[in-house]
Amino acid sequence: MATKISGNARRPEPQALAGAVAALAARFGNRLITSQAVREQHAHTTTWLPAQPPDAVVMAQETADIQDVVRICSRHGVPVIAFGTGTSLEGQVNAPAGGVCIDLRDMNRILEVHAEDLDCVIQPGVTRKALNEHLRDQGLFFPIDPGADASLGGMTSTRASGTNAVRYGTMRDNVLALKVVRGDGEIITTGTRAKKSSAGYDLTHLFVGAEGTLGIISELTIKLRGIPETIAAAACSFETVRGACQATILAIQTGIPVARIELLNAEQVRACNAYSKLSLPETPLLLLEFHGSEIEVAEQSRNFSEIAQECGGGDFTWTTRPEDRTKLWQARHDAYWAVKALRPGAGVVATDVCVPISRLADCVTETEDDLQRIGLLSPIVGHVGDGNFHCSLVCDVDDPEEMARGEAFMHRLVERAQAMGGTCTGEHGIGQGKQKYLEAELGSEAIDAMRALKAALDPQNIFNPGKIVPAN
Amino acid sequence: MATKISGNARRPEPQALAGAVAALAARFGNRLITSQAVREQHAHTTTWLPAQPPDAVVMAQETADIQDVVRICSRHGVPVIAFGTGTSLEGQVNAPAGGVCIDLRDMNRILEVHAEDLDCVIQPGVTRKALNEHLRDQGLFFPIDPGADASLGGMTSTRASGTNAVRYGTMRDNVLALKVVRGDGEIITTGTRAKKSSAGYDLTHLFVGAEGTLGIISELTIKLRGIPETIAAAACSFETVRGACQATILAIQTGIPVARIELLNAEQVRACNAYSKLSLPETPLLLLEFHGSEIEVAEQSRNFSEIAQECGGGDFTWTTRPEDRTKLWQARHDAYWAVKALRPGAGVVATDVCVPISRLADCVTETEDDLQRIGLLSPIVGHVGDGNFHCSLVCDVDDPEEMARGEAFMHRLVERAQAMGGTCTGEHGIGQGKQKYLEAELGSEAIDAMRALKAALDPQNIFNPGKIVPAN
Repeated sequence: MATKISGNARRPEPQALAGAVAALAARFGNRLITSQAVREQHAHTTTWLPAQPPDAVVMAQETADIQDVVRICSRHGVPVIAFGTGTSLEGQVNAPAGGVCIDLRDMNRILEVHAEDLDCVIQPGVTRKALNEHLRDQGLFFPIDPGADASLGGMTSTRASGTNAVRYGTMRDNVLALKVVRGDGEIITTGTRAKKSSAGYDLTHLFVGAEGTLGIISELTIKLRGIPETIAAAACSFETVRGACQATILAIQTGIPVARIELLNAEQVRACNAYSKLSLPETPLLLLEFHGSEIEVAEQSRNFSEIAQECGGGDFTWTTRPEDRTKLWQARHDAYWAVKALRPGAGVVATDVCVPISRLADCVTETEDDLQRIGLLSPIVGHVGDGNFHCSLVCDVDDPEEMARGEAFMHRLVERAQAMGGTCTGEHGIGQGKQKYLEAELGSEAIDAMRALKAALDPQNIFNPGKIVPAN
Repeated sequence: MATKISGNARRPEPQALAGAVAALAARFGNRLITSQAVREQHAHTTTWLPAQPPDAVVMAQETADIQDVVRICSRHGVPVIAFGTGTSLEGQVNAPAGGVCIDLRDMNRILEVHAEDLDCVIQPGVTRKALNEHLRDQGLFFPIDPGADASLGGMTSTRASGTNAVRYGTMRDNVLALKVVRGDGEIITTGTRAKKSSAGYDLTHLFVGAEGTLGIISELTIKLRGIPETIAAAACSFETVRGACQATILAIQTGIPVARIELLNAEQVRACNAYSKLSLPETPLLLLEFHGSEIEVAEQSRNFSEIAQECGGGDFTWTTRPEDRTKLWQARHDAYWAVKALRPGAGVVATDVCVPISRLADCVTETEDDLQRIGLLSPIVGHVGDGNFHCSLVCDVDDPEEMARGEAFMHRLVERAQAMGGTCTGEHGIGQGKQKYLEAELGSEAIDAMRALKAALDPQNIFNPGKIVPAN
């Protein structure tokens, strides 16, 4: 009998694993890698979850490779874990039961760009930056920006979003169709290039956010946008988090189509000032970006600045000059490094929650109070238009007491968000780290449904076992 | 053994049905109705599909009613069909295997409105117009407008959209969370009020568009918008469908956030002129609506009019005066009645397909040629920003030869759309009418997946059997 390892993941029998690895070696030659260094790279995790390397890594180059890995692993009952760039934050690429990692970085071809339809067809290993580089000359871009230069397959699988989701939506809103390799190696096509469809169950959105637990994405059709004629950046300081949140609520209610609206709390601004040699007022700050024609962007900025004034905002600065925009957003882009620099040598654990926007000020303020009480540093940045915010908890990973305090804080953060009608994760996903919060959020019936879906589409439980669905 | 009736629906044994009806009578008294007239009203179908009435109708008033109907039907193995307003177009509320219809019209309470969060919580029987009536005083509206005053539960279940999906999306983009009664009567909660989440499988979007085949929606949390400061309407005639489509493509590429952009082909304009006593040029027409601040709306109109000129558009008229807007859109709103009046006494069968926007002109033009060849009338209106268009086929329902010609036309229409990378339905759903097209569109692997999902969430096959998933 296989042994239960983590959640609902079971390690295969040694001879099953050996059989799979032998078959993979015969098929893939030196594209099958079993060295410890490479295996460990593929268990890369950016949380405090322990790394759990796979038993082997296959470098896939085309869809047929994925199909053959899945067929071989399925025949031997061995787990298969898809790997993009390893930038997920909740242990999504860990291999708690071992198995075979399919590294998709070489499946990075942009297969078709349809400028008139504003869509493109790509392989899963294409990264966000490579895609936008490719599209620039055609005046097009892909809007989702989670920070890291993640792969589009990975971003789809974690239902990623980021700073401009407030205007352009998340990966959920920007994937038109997928091709997914199922357990027998055959390919499920989930949709067409039509912009909308009511043809049957929404398979596309079942695989978006499934973290590779229902099959392996081998091709994506995603939506594109025209690069806006004008981009303006703006910044505005507020006396309180509440003022900044209120300005955001009013801006969205009145329909100002802000492209980005990011909150940095006072502690994050302090960290950025120190790291980026800035002299921003050390109070809550909103950073904004407006997209549109020159007239539209000016109008949006003007309307927002009036709202900001009503909500106790200070000087409102805005600019359309690229070099000034870059400078203004520098603090935001360097936020992680600024936090890192607060306490050299310590770890920074990133976590996110998302609440109805009316509760955001409460949630951030209570979280700041909580941090004060427990004496830990955790600057906060928020995609405030979506009610989504991140804590970057600074912790000495070698100090068990401090880590325990940090973990208890994270736990209260999730409970606080859920009590306010929110979710335990707005964009990082469940992975291993947040399984324990799902039932409190949605109830046992939703977990039953998720378990039934997993069993229906992956009856062998070979696709990324031990993720999302809590153990029974 | 139960007998196979239609697709994968099986009529229950007479004693099972009698047992269910007796139990329902005991529980619901005169809210259980078995009169032929009422049963027939609940099989209302607006296509040429034959009406198939349920065996009984229960008038539900609260969630507990739905739960009890489902429990009783489940115990006796009797089908349950949810009914909103009966405006679906592909036989979605037909009862091919009999069973019990749950009429949700009395579950029409708006439970919560969260103006700051731009969302509300409602019962499934709330209609679109009632909701917008309720919201108006708060400066809010719900944007999806499929034409009919449908219930929000029904609109969710068919993944409806309509004229302003080009800006505001479809029901898929506007449902935040659902409560769904499952087979044992317990309730699945699919999400929270947070604007985004990556917490596990996307249950919400599995139920959006499931046409009541996976459970009964008992409560919805949906997104709202602020009523725009200014609304402008515009009209522009084109020499060709291609010119109108090209103008639409350019408008979207350059990011003009049109709220509505509707195509009427020459034949539809002719019908509207005759019915609404207008004197529009009898060539392809685009009707547009712009939403925003006064300055934004003026800018959008100006930008669009430049594009229209480049694409061979004629005079561009626009207005922000409510009475003029109403007049301009009258032709569009009365399109169905105008078609009806073309041939009094004949039937009008509405069908829809959706293609990538770059192929829309081809698809509409080839369809017009096809109609010419077969000598049938079918004016075309299109949600052209989405690549979605409707044929309103005028047919003598008592003439089998003509009906056969019409049906063959519909078949070719779907094949044409699918060959162009499109879908057999953009917004009407699959129901009974379009099951036969699903496999050609997505392949057998997608059908397998849909069948597996249906079996996973409705193992008894009691929820609206015979819809969406083709018989095995």
